[in-house]
Amino acid sequence: MPLNTSEKTVGRLSLYRRLLQELSTASVSYVYSHQLATKAGVTAAKLRRDIMAIGYTGSPSKGYDVVKLAESIAHFLEDPEGQPAVIIGVGNLGRAIMSYFGGRRPKLQLVAAFDSDEKKVNRVIHNIRCFSADSLEEYIVQNSIKVAVITVPVTQAQNVADILVRSGVKGIMNFAPIHLRVPSDVFIEDIDLAISLEKVAYFARQNKQKKEA
Amino acid sequence: MPLNTSEKTVGRLSLYRRLLQELSTASVSYVYSHQLATKAGVTAAKLRRDIMAIGYTGSPSKGYDVVKLAESIAHFLEDPEGQPAVIIGVGNLGRAIMSYFGGRRPKLQLVAAFDSDEKKVNRVIHNIRCFSADSLEEYIVQNSIKVAVITVPVTQAQNVADILVRSGVKGIMNFAPIHLRVPSDVFIEDIDLAISLEKVAYFARQNKQKKEA
Repeated sequence: MPLNTSEKTVGRLSLYRRLLQELSTASVSYVYSHQLATKAGVTAAKLRRDIMAIGYTGSPSKGYDVVKLAESIAHFLEDPEGQPAVIIGVGNLGRAIMSYFGGRRPKLQLVAAFDSDEKKVNRVIHNIRCFSADSLEEYIVQNSIKVAVITVPVTQAQNVADILVRSGVKGIMNFAPIHLRVPSDVFIEDIDLAISLEKVAYFARQNKQKKEA
Repeated sequence: MPLNTSEKTVGRLSLYRRLLQELSTASVSYVYSHQLATKAGVTAAKLRRDIMAIGYTGSPSKGYDVVKLAESIAHFLEDPEGQPAVIIGVGNLGRAIMSYFGGRRPKLQLVAAFDSDEKKVNRVIHNIRCFSADSLEEYIVQNSIKVAVITVPVTQAQNVADILVRSGVKGIMNFAPIHLRVPSDVFIEDIDLAISLEKVAYFARQNKQKKEA
């Protein structure tokens, strides 16, 4: 398994796996690399390279075996023992994320939510129990949590990240619009919705300007 | 104004602008490039290059004028007349996005939401009125909407994108886990939450394996 697999490669493998699962649900048994590549929006050459990189050898004459390739990617991406994850911040966005991930991946599940609002503590939202933010560190250490999602307001995000890091979390999906300071061995995926929408608006407008010029 | 400004540059400019607004709120008048760069998580050289690219000339001895630089970036990123945007899909994620963007940017506002569930029609959620999905095309054309957010289930996303494109939308923020087929003059920003979380889990685990190896 290549340890230097890039973020983009991992993202594409995750996408191929989902597309393969859709094909499997539709009772498709084999898929050609160019067909799967079109669905993923990449070139067939790039897809074949990604799939070779995880050590999968397909049958080029009738295409990839849909189920076997999906299993092979799952084996590469997922921990066979499962990876429990927690979410901190049970506001509108936090609840939407809890709904989104509820039961989506048996090997990657949100097992607990944390909030500083005592009214939310002990509630069960989208099948995930809310705990007090005060118990975050203890919970992470006791349950060996390595993956966390931050959906707290920007003013609390660095403090939460500090607690996560010192409790042993190694991967953070961060929705707070702030550049979190963490050690280099902690992976951060920033999802900055405001920046994304501004980008969309900018390029939508450039297009208009180009046409009118 | 360079028409070929890259996505990443636009994303960084949006981030600088937000950081400058925070400094302004904290009554800071001047900021050195290296200070702003640290907050943004980029090198000072890259930040200076980005800011030069939009034609802003700062005063290097006492740093950038916080208010003037923020205005200059806003002038670059935003349409002075404002850009109304719509959202399609008023489920958990859609409502969270509506809450997130409610009143955030006067020049970039969600003005209407659409859903095929008639029970949601005419409700006002986070100050945004919900309309029937049947009226989407008419609304977009009549109001010259160029920016849209897709938060419908994956099975409906391509159909919605087709309606948006033929009504004149030029930028789409897409939360549906699907590669949308659109003409090359339409900008798509995919936010794939499942892929992002799988990436975080993968790299959190790699870290662990590396340490134990």
